[in-house]
Amino acid sequence: MAQAVQASIGDSEFDRDTAVTRRAPGVYDAELSAGWTILRAVNGGYLLALLGRALSDTLPHPDPFTVSAHYLSASRPGPAVIRTETVRTGRTLSTGQASLVQYEEDGTEVERIRVLATYGDLELLTPDVGTSATPPPIPPYEQCPGTDDAPQPVLPGSTAILDRLSLRLDPATVGWALGAPSGKGEMRGWFGLADGRDADPLSLLLTVDALPPTAFELGIQGWTPTIELTTHIRCRPAPGPLRVAITTRNVAGGFLEEDAEVWDSRDRLVAQSRQLAKVPGGQ
Amino acid sequence: MAQAVQASIGDSEFDRDTAVTRRAPGVYDAELSAGWTILRAVNGGYLLALLGRALSDTLPHPDPFTVSAHYLSASRPGPAVIRTETVRTGRTLSTGQASLVQYEEDGTEVERIRVLATYGDLELLTPDVGTSATPPPIPPYEQCPGTDDAPQPVLPGSTAILDRLSLRLDPATVGWALGAPSGKGEMRGWFGLADGRDADPLSLLLTVDALPPTAFELGIQGWTPTIELTTHIRCRPAPGPLRVAITTRNVAGGFLEEDAEVWDSRDRLVAQSRQLAKVPGGQ
Repeated sequence: MAQAVQASIGDSEFDRDTAVTRRAPGVYDAELSAGWTILRAVNGGYLLALLGRALSDTLPHPDPFTVSAHYLSASRPGPAVIRTETVRTGRTLSTGQASLVQYEEDGTEVERIRVLATYGDLELLTPDVGTSATPPPIPPYEQCPGTDDAPQPVLPGSTAILDRLSLRLDPATVGWALGAPSGKGEMRGWFGLADGRDADPLSLLLTVDALPPTAFELGIQGWTPTIELTTHIRCRPAPGPLRVAITTRNVAGGFLEEDAEVWDSRDRLVAQSRQLAKVPGGQ
Repeated sequence: MAQAVQASIGDSEFDRDTAVTRRAPGVYDAELSAGWTILRAVNGGYLLALLGRALSDTLPHPDPFTVSAHYLSASRPGPAVIRTETVRTGRTLSTGQASLVQYEEDGTEVERIRVLATYGDLELLTPDVGTSATPPPIPPYEQCPGTDDAPQPVLPGSTAILDRLSLRLDPATVGWALGAPSGKGEMRGWFGLADGRDADPLSLLLTVDALPPTAFELGIQGWTPTIELTTHIRCRPAPGPLRVAITTRNVAGGFLEEDAEVWDSRDRLVAQSRQLAKVPGGQ
């Protein structure tokens, strides 16, 4: 009767690959998995989930409410160390800082990302919802092509991360994969983890940075590295696939922003993020 | 012939009140002016400009490109110390961290804000603009009421900051001041400094947090303290008044976001920001 066994929160590929081991107070060992890479770079959302997990352990509150990450250098698969600091603890919110570093062959430490984050407890939020935003107009799941359906490799080069995701892109935003980008700064789709693990606040940190960049639909060639990414987690996501909509409105001076919204199966806006990214060939 | 002498960038009330004095490498003395307070709290955008000025001095690049600020406790007028750290320096971008602290009467140090910021040089940006966003629909300057035109005090209590700003709100978003909020999460208006000083990247850090909160138009009573505010400065602003549009789409669980856009007199989108704020009476 059962389909393939569905992974659960706490026992899944995502959980194993974002595990951190506390070596000392505020010092965590991690192993950046090659499974979450695009080209040679480790995905920025995956890294954020690792940092988020270390901060969940350090701070007295469990859930990321707002996480601001500045990306300093490209991470590589392999060992990493995360250092955390408690900046302030309050009754309902606490703020922490975290830094992920890796080591060159000669032992030189190189910082990859630095993060400031404010944590709280999503379970304790008041039940009020007065949201005027509406879920993005994405066709039903069955009508959206998966990344396996593309006539050619969806992304050039190695795309290990795609094996770990269950992405179904809105047909209106896949023109780029067919050589005919829409010219609009929009990317939308259904998001899940390939092993069926449901979403939680930590995996939402991955979700906001896991779709192909809007730059592809703008006809921009090449990669758009993230300079800074800030994510607000607004609600604990319900089980089931998520809908993600990413919008770019301002491309100027060699930079662009990407605004992401993530909606859960109960039509709740569970995460909002914005990143500043660099257009290739710019400054 | 001349009107009242117009203040200039570098010689204005804003510049004097955001001055910082380097006491040692990475340590700056500042005086939080009572002139930029709302009720008893020092305005968060003004504080951000102070931190931004200290980082401009510390980092090799002059202009804030993206600044992420986590607000830890309410600042008070009076002495403050800003500590900065250079996190990474690159050819075109550098990243720094800054912290503003004040001291209790017994000498206890209390951190007010911590900031991560990535700086660059706006003069060196490529001239490309491929922006799909359009300036907000604000009526002409002369048709927008100034804060002096309100039939009653615009904000309850002390509003020293209003004497330093030249705000003209869109009539469509001033219902709250007349006891009839629109119910929409929108606040728009013209923004300038009262002494006529033109905008620069540092003053934009003030501008994104200087309008009345969208919560007023949503009929939310009381103040909405900022938890985190991230600002992208995308272009050096042209002289002349700015247009600011702030939008709130997601009010839920006792929190809301405010998205601000700032446009200059040449119709360039010069700044984008998003903040997470707390609804009074929530958690």
